[in-house]
Amino acid sequence: MQNNKLIVIGGDAAGMTAASKVRREQPECEIVVFERGIHTSYSACGMPYYIGGQIESEEQLIARKPEVFRQKQYIDVRTRHEVIEIDPISKRVKVKSLDEENVFWEPWDDLLIATGASPIVPEMENVDAGGIFTLSTLQSGIDVFNFVNEKKPTKAVVVGGGYIGIEMAEAFLDRSMEVTLIDMAPQLMATFDKDMADLIFDYMTEQQVKVLLEEKLVKFEKNPDGSVKTVITDKQSIPADIVILGMGVKPNSELAAQAGIKLGANNAICVNQRLETSAPNIWAAGDCAESFHLITQKQVHIALGTVANKHGLVAGINISGGSARFPGVLGTAITKFNGLEISCTGISEKEAIKLKLDYQVETITSSSPAGYYPGSEKITVKLLVDQATKRILGGQIIGYQGAAKRIDTIATAITAGFTVQQLVDLDLAYAPPFSTVWDPVQIAARKFI
Amino acid sequence: MQNNKLIVIGGDAAGMTAASKVRREQPECEIVVFERGIHTSYSACGMPYYIGGQIESEEQLIARKPEVFRQKQYIDVRTRHEVIEIDPISKRVKVKSLDEENVFWEPWDDLLIATGASPIVPEMENVDAGGIFTLSTLQSGIDVFNFVNEKKPTKAVVVGGGYIGIEMAEAFLDRSMEVTLIDMAPQLMATFDKDMADLIFDYMTEQQVKVLLEEKLVKFEKNPDGSVKTVITDKQSIPADIVILGMGVKPNSELAAQAGIKLGANNAICVNQRLETSAPNIWAAGDCAESFHLITQKQVHIALGTVANKHGLVAGINISGGSARFPGVLGTAITKFNGLEISCTGISEKEAIKLKLDYQVETITSSSPAGYYPGSEKITVKLLVDQATKRILGGQIIGYQGAAKRIDTIATAITAGFTVQQLVDLDLAYAPPFSTVWDPVQIAARKFI
Repeated sequence: MQNNKLIVIGGDAAGMTAASKVRREQPECEIVVFERGIHTSYSACGMPYYIGGQIESEEQLIARKPEVFRQKQYIDVRTRHEVIEIDPISKRVKVKSLDEENVFWEPWDDLLIATGASPIVPEMENVDAGGIFTLSTLQSGIDVFNFVNEKKPTKAVVVGGGYIGIEMAEAFLDRSMEVTLIDMAPQLMATFDKDMADLIFDYMTEQQVKVLLEEKLVKFEKNPDGSVKTVITDKQSIPADIVILGMGVKPNSELAAQAGIKLGANNAICVNQRLETSAPNIWAAGDCAESFHLITQKQVHIALGTVANKHGLVAGINISGGSARFPGVLGTAITKFNGLEISCTGISEKEAIKLKLDYQVETITSSSPAGYYPGSEKITVKLLVDQATKRILGGQIIGYQGAAKRIDTIATAITAGFTVQQLVDLDLAYAPPFSTVWDPVQIAARKFI
Repeated sequence: MQNNKLIVIGGDAAGMTAASKVRREQPECEIVVFERGIHTSYSACGMPYYIGGQIESEEQLIARKPEVFRQKQYIDVRTRHEVIEIDPISKRVKVKSLDEENVFWEPWDDLLIATGASPIVPEMENVDAGGIFTLSTLQSGIDVFNFVNEKKPTKAVVVGGGYIGIEMAEAFLDRSMEVTLIDMAPQLMATFDKDMADLIFDYMTEQQVKVLLEEKLVKFEKNPDGSVKTVITDKQSIPADIVILGMGVKPNSELAAQAGIKLGANNAICVNQRLETSAPNIWAAGDCAESFHLITQKQVHIALGTVANKHGLVAGINISGGSARFPGVLGTAITKFNGLEISCTGISEKEAIKLKLDYQVETITSSSPAGYYPGSEKITVKLLVDQATKRILGGQIIGYQGAAKRIDTIATAITAGFTVQQLVDLDLAYAPPFSTVWDPVQIAARKFI
């Protein structure tokens, strides 16, 4: 694209990163962003901490506002505008202005679909009751925050024990609620192995979250005023004033599918490493698009801020006529529940079994920082390697302050194709306030040797 | 060596790691360790925190006591025994029992020299005054601790602004002393560049340490009772009740040199990657020996616990008849002064200039964790790359809680031979309590692209 017209659908991480990159590379190009909400470029990942009261204002979650994009970067951001149709032949999109309620066509030379993902909401009785929320857009976070302040709920039920689930369990505890978390799986955090997830279960239970595993959501009951009254599972009825559904997300790919654009893993938009879709001059980036997984060598759908930002940058470079390739993902992720830090990268043992890989696994418990240093706590590291080559395939870390960011060392080593011996050989940083003399990830690696 | 007799000189990290490895591999082999002090396998790096009162007892710094080695591992550890001569021809060492004051010869089939390093003590007037200390052995740490408790010094002078210097400045502040730190260099922390070291200077000054740079120690003055009274520099006289000399270390290699064993960098014992010295069946490991530097591709002397442990392991494997190579060092190091975390790896800009490399450098300031998250603070990352290949040559990080251990990501990337683009491409862990969406090390890497 040479200074032509770019339309971006979706004004969050991927879309605005791409738009900004194109603006830098192509100062004369016309860039229009249609965003159906009212916010741009916000940190969805920060919402649980905002709801929990740790962040003063939702303003702090906004990296850049629409007017800043308009004024400083000459990016024509139109909020409350929903794209309702893509015409890949005539190269135009049909747009609905949500405020003026008119519909118009807008032409493009390049189109970037960055429509994100939406929380999965099960079809069941009374799922529309007041006080039942999902978290996705900043507005959805503000809605929860306002509900907590106004209605002062005391009993929270979180459905789903993934990232959103455990972060919201923490947020609701911080707002002095009784918190019940239910998940139909036999463990929390599906991306972890059960042995590691059990450590999270123990800690959350200790911290007064009632965690109910292998328990399936069936329906809800309403109060006469329409607000949620109880959560009905296959085992019991749980009183609730507020409910968060953290049951995973699905890519917002319907618009693309309707335009005949090919979908891939988990119905995410199929893209190549340049972030090109199956339709000429149509690109996709962020939570609506696939990513290449470095270990499984397959396309996957991973909806994470880090991936969305990288997607946006790669798409932006390519749209501007440059040449960039999305490097692939390891599914590296991190979170915490109160003091417990949790991270993983690469594949889990569970996935290795599913993929029928010949693997070896070791799990160690050490301390971080050094055992004698004040505040030293247990850290558990699980490493998975290919049996034949001893190359690292995945890692999981559970510990306390300063523990989990060590996953980056493992992620870097995996990307480099390192064996466990090469991980042991690394010259990593040691001082008593930070680590044992062999870093815990190396202690785990030494178990294979 | 096949189940013959191994003598180890020196019972700390390198020596005992090697002895333990040999015991595991060769259950029948006779292993004798001569240690001139009374302690084995202790964390010298923990001593500043013990002196500062953060660690309850010196016992906590001891990983394993002589009697445990004797009873559990059948390693004949003889403390208070000093080796005073190596006879490489007849394969024996002359040993002085410091308690019984007798001298005897002991034969070996393999000999490991793990004699460590000693603090540099300048020859100057009254350097023998009471209250002037260096830190090296655990006993030296206990001596300082006891002195502080008994004499209750109120004015401390720390000579040298390296790791020991800034850690002891913290310890003395923790013991409610007025602390003056002097260094003849124009900056603290010689392994860092001045622009980064200046951040440490600013912080230490803010925290009430009087830091005097470009000021040279000249001599000391004593009180009538023989205790130190003042530190005399080339600029002034500074009253002092206690003084720590943190002026660097020199390898304890005289014994090896006297036996005709070749010395190398900084007079450390010259070793190959198997940790073999120039004499047959004589090995050296730890602070007394050289290491291969992965960036400069030269032998260097780096006295660090991480290196000593790796040396010991490699020597132990090879002595047992196995085959291991020391992987080389990047000089990765980390410390903190109160809340300020400090780390580096690879080479600094200063060194790149000295080596006449064509390099590029970028320094960024970001936040860790995410800017809006409670407790977010500034983090500064400096990256150095080879101009032609864009491969990473070094990194320096200065920040607050959770900042500095990120140096491991850079160390891993350097070891993998990564370019800055490959660092940007990494799938690193992000969540608001831990990081910005692009990790600060990636923000620095992006500046080159």
